[in-house]
Amino acid sequence: MVSVTGPARRSAGRPLNRILSQEAITRAALTLIETRGYEGLTMSSLARALKVAPSSLYNHVESKGDVLILLQDHVMTQVDVSGFETEPWEQAIRRFAWSYRDVFTRHTPLIPVIAVLPVSGAPQTLAVYEAVTRGFERAAWPEPLIVPAIIALESFIFGSAFDATAPETIFESGQLAGHYPRFTAAVSALKDNADRRQADVAFGMGLDALILGLQARAAEHPS
Amino acid sequence: MVSVTGPARRSAGRPLNRILSQEAITRAALTLIETRGYEGLTMSSLARALKVAPSSLYNHVESKGDVLILLQDHVMTQVDVSGFETEPWEQAIRRFAWSYRDVFTRHTPLIPVIAVLPVSGAPQTLAVYEAVTRGFERAAWPEPLIVPAIIALESFIFGSAFDATAPETIFESGQLAGHYPRFTAAVSALKDNADRRQADVAFGMGLDALILGLQARAAEHPS
Repeated sequence: MVSVTGPARRSAGRPLNRILSQEAITRAALTLIETRGYEGLTMSSLARALKVAPSSLYNHVESKGDVLILLQDHVMTQVDVSGFETEPWEQAIRRFAWSYRDVFTRHTPLIPVIAVLPVSGAPQTLAVYEAVTRGFERAAWPEPLIVPAIIALESFIFGSAFDATAPETIFESGQLAGHYPRFTAAVSALKDNADRRQADVAFGMGLDALILGLQARAAEHPS
Repeated sequence: MVSVTGPARRSAGRPLNRILSQEAITRAALTLIETRGYEGLTMSSLARALKVAPSSLYNHVESKGDVLILLQDHVMTQVDVSGFETEPWEQAIRRFAWSYRDVFTRHTPLIPVIAVLPVSGAPQTLAVYEAVTRGFERAAWPEPLIVPAIIALESFIFGSAFDATAPETIFESGQLAGHYPRFTAAVSALKDNADRRQADVAFGMGLDALILGLQARAAEHPS
């Protein structure tokens, strides 16, 4: 597995190879995804975009999985953790959670990667966790509850990022409506009352609930 | 896109083809996954398992994506919604959420499928939502809050299923620990206090928080 911090392997005596840094590979992969989506990201399309032979690319990353790891760590720099230094905990969590969800809504194929990737190979991801942890500590959170609270928030955020890519009509039961009358009625009741996207209503409500519930849990922890 | 309810296309005058029902395809795909994982599920391995020519298989499902849709709807039958008819809401939600997470921990490749699949083509999924909705109604939940509450719970469950497949050491910062001291300390504090798997601690804490927070939200809804 590629390590984002590790030195790139380099053929001896080939200074031209320096242009193929991990940064260059990451930038080219991001551009490909923006124009053609994740389906358009292949090792050969990436080599073409970098104007190198596929064999040169394979000197730096062994597979598309390695490229996704580089991308994942880069994408984490787009998550807004600025509130944790200055704002009250709740406000900082909201800023963090909405920005984290929005970033990964554009990059859902990275979610299965980040969810199981050891942080030791992902310095930007670690920097995000460090900033979030400091925010919890500033708010005097009990130390053993911080990591599970971050994991719970993150799990909710990842699942919500998938949901945000769903079509707005995902819950319309169509011809089967007569067989599932209560769910069909509940879907209608939401539509009648919501002027926002369904995914945003659900994310807002779940985030409010998590914040309230996590704060209650922290308050009852023996100090 | 395949519809789970739609009739299978069938070549005229080939009664033998009847064995290639959607049920048979689903069963064979499940067996393949159990023995070889999702990586071992390909259209050609599936055709071999079913003892048919790939062309026969393509008469019923157009792609591996179609097979995942069949699998997704089948897997939903394993989610435990039995509590919603008899138990208090909170207890039923806990039973539902833990079983839903455990089922999808074994089937994480289906999460990107289910998260964006319209329910109109997935009758078992609709049956689950119908049972859950009835449980919310029995507990006198305000109608417009039911669907967003279900989506929020589901998002948390899907993200947590990914987390449950992560290695237990995912948060060890290794050689980078010195650069991220507060997060490293918080990870140690969790390890010192937990006798359960990290993912289970986080899921339990997040679920408690969501339940508390969602109930508070329902209580303040104007009736």
